[in-house]
Amino acid sequence: MAKVVAGMIGLGTVGTGVVRLLAKEKKIFLKKVAVRDINKARADDIFCSVTNDVYELINDPEIELIIEVMGSDQPAYEYLTAALEKRKHVVTANKEVLAKHGPELFALAKKKHLAIFFEASVAGGIPLISTMLKGLEANQINSVTGILNGTTNFILSSMEEHKISFASALAQAQALGFAEADPSADVEGFDVAYKLSILSALAFGHFVKPDSIYREGITKIGQKDLEIADSFGYRIKLVGTASRFSSNGNPKLDVRVQPMLIPKQHLLANISGSNNVILVNGDAVEQLAMVGPGAGQLPTASAIVGDVINLANALHLPDFAEYFQPEIESGWSTVTDEGNISRRFYMRLVVHDVPGVIGKIGTILGKNEISIQSIVQRGVKDEKANVIILTDFVRHSAVNKAAAELKGCDFLDELANLLAIFEEQ
Amino acid sequence: MAKVVAGMIGLGTVGTGVVRLLAKEKKIFLKKVAVRDINKARADDIFCSVTNDVYELINDPEIELIIEVMGSDQPAYEYLTAALEKRKHVVTANKEVLAKHGPELFALAKKKHLAIFFEASVAGGIPLISTMLKGLEANQINSVTGILNGTTNFILSSMEEHKISFASALAQAQALGFAEADPSADVEGFDVAYKLSILSALAFGHFVKPDSIYREGITKIGQKDLEIADSFGYRIKLVGTASRFSSNGNPKLDVRVQPMLIPKQHLLANISGSNNVILVNGDAVEQLAMVGPGAGQLPTASAIVGDVINLANALHLPDFAEYFQPEIESGWSTVTDEGNISRRFYMRLVVHDVPGVIGKIGTILGKNEISIQSIVQRGVKDEKANVIILTDFVRHSAVNKAAAELKGCDFLDELANLLAIFEEQ
Repeated sequence: MAKVVAGMIGLGTVGTGVVRLLAKEKKIFLKKVAVRDINKARADDIFCSVTNDVYELINDPEIELIIEVMGSDQPAYEYLTAALEKRKHVVTANKEVLAKHGPELFALAKKKHLAIFFEASVAGGIPLISTMLKGLEANQINSVTGILNGTTNFILSSMEEHKISFASALAQAQALGFAEADPSADVEGFDVAYKLSILSALAFGHFVKPDSIYREGITKIGQKDLEIADSFGYRIKLVGTASRFSSNGNPKLDVRVQPMLIPKQHLLANISGSNNVILVNGDAVEQLAMVGPGAGQLPTASAIVGDVINLANALHLPDFAEYFQPEIESGWSTVTDEGNISRRFYMRLVVHDVPGVIGKIGTILGKNEISIQSIVQRGVKDEKANVIILTDFVRHSAVNKAAAELKGCDFLDELANLLAIFEEQ
Repeated sequence: MAKVVAGMIGLGTVGTGVVRLLAKEKKIFLKKVAVRDINKARADDIFCSVTNDVYELINDPEIELIIEVMGSDQPAYEYLTAALEKRKHVVTANKEVLAKHGPELFALAKKKHLAIFFEASVAGGIPLISTMLKGLEANQINSVTGILNGTTNFILSSMEEHKISFASALAQAQALGFAEADPSADVEGFDVAYKLSILSALAFGHFVKPDSIYREGITKIGQKDLEIADSFGYRIKLVGTASRFSSNGNPKLDVRVQPMLIPKQHLLANISGSNNVILVNGDAVEQLAMVGPGAGQLPTASAIVGDVINLANALHLPDFAEYFQPEIESGWSTVTDEGNISRRFYMRLVVHDVPGVIGKIGTILGKNEISIQSIVQRGVKDEKANVIILTDFVRHSAVNKAAAELKGCDFLDELANLLAIFEEQ
């Protein structure tokens, strides 16, 4: 078989891993890599021809597929569109460009009879995309839930293990290369929201606009919250979930990313460090869990190179792209307003330690029809105390309303945290 | 697209699930099912034409693919061979026929340019086969380890949870339909050995003859063993593993199924009931874990129907079978003699409670160059005591030799158990 000729855009950590793994593949020739700075020093084992002109790849008629590992929305969207227009297949690790422009990119690929492979865009080395596309083909997917960001999981794990603050754990993660200098994409939950948009497309047929996904980050999680959660039998994890449910006979979609209290015995609570875990619930398979490295040079590169090999092996089949085209509809899914979702909540208030406070809190919650599962006072210090409330199932909007009322009360020093509690569906 | 016409051999629990799931698939027409007894009563929702002549399917030129869910070695091997000769693609859930005749079946399929799909043959609803074939394409697999039999895991879990004997737990599993009337394929480890042969073919390129796989069952596990293991921080699980390693520069294969003591915090120790778990270790992805239902009507049927859909979608592509042909070599792999493998062991002796016994045991172990990590005496009753030994790393052959010597000693009432201890690789 003749070699399949590929070009790559980007040569950062993951791109370097791709060059290393492709060096072992006899069937693929990586002709050229587009980089920002052609004079930058590279590792000794990185042999590849470089250019700083992406269009040199896009306009090269010999190149059959473009590997894109540059990340971000623009100019990646421009490059991928141009590559598809020039009839190149695409292998991308870029969750942001897929989440923001998925409908357009897949429509263009379909029109041109080309394939877009994107195994590395979600959950790094875990072959989740191929599992959802092919392995669970006979299933209607009901929900996809998981820990989809290794950076935040590493931070929360080390806060828990070393009893340190969010800021210290973040600094440590940055020093170890697990977090970016600007960590907001990870710690504010944007990264997980992009991944949920892609998973929604696979599970439910449409992408979800990332800015319509309910999103809470982990910057507000304090050491105190972890300790209190622990004493109640929970760990705190950043959870992404996309699920469909029926409300008054109408199909609804619930897509959100938020730190949640997870019962310690649950699998989600037992994945620490930079690992990812995904639970897929399908009508026939029931529940499937996958655990593995959600990031890292070689795990992510292995997902990309797996795509490249699978694509290269199939390229000679006429109409093969149709077989690999995921069944994604054009347009976007609408997500249910988070306020209408009912779940249990954890609320931590810092109050002035005066008599009758618990009664006053209970009254406000009761007025908002929030049933309390437990309310306890912890650790009085400097005349202030933590009051921890675990609610019964209640709408998020009702809890927000009660929280606003509590903020207006004299006895309240601070509404320190309000977090959802994870329940097995 | 015209419907793809399929025939099925077998209509037991799983076959019934396949009929149910295929009823929802518009692209596939299940023309006929071969059954042993055409007059047997079926569930009301099972609409399919039946025959008791398998060759009616095999000789039907309209049928493009044969789904085989009858199980066992013969006559399944005869039927599958005949089906391939008649140019039918095959989807099979039959681990035994693949483990015993894999090389011949895949060689015949290759010769005839046909595909054999077998997702349901290992780990039921977990899409492990497609993950290993496609999802981890860029990896060299170093080991596959897991709990691959739901029946034995259910039995061990309920022995642990309800503090009951093996016999009671087996009877309960049989009453609930989790174990066969003749449970030996499960409890003696044959089922796992078949699965390991298939996983070895995917991971290392050759099937392994099932009778060359080192095999211990769980019938010997007593309530006492579970309690003692628990007190040392372990659970006991039936573990299957296939791994490659290098010995003096020579590549070796270690394939075995045996009950092992697993540290309680390890994922393998935390999978209970009829679930399966598989850990795949690859050079790029590091470790990937998959957890899900290893058996059951709909999970297994979902794997089969997933195969049927994937095959049906690809059927119109010329030469597609080549793309789906796993890279399996002809012939068989040779497995390293279990005696040469070093690991830690748990040994439980029942001894007559006379002075000096521990010293005598220690002397025999020392003479065989077995380092002892701990040796403790537990629960003296009727002048008998349990002595529990945890060894350091030692060759299995040395432990067997010491065990034979101990059996000749007057102070020994019974060598109640000898089990390997799981270590993370």
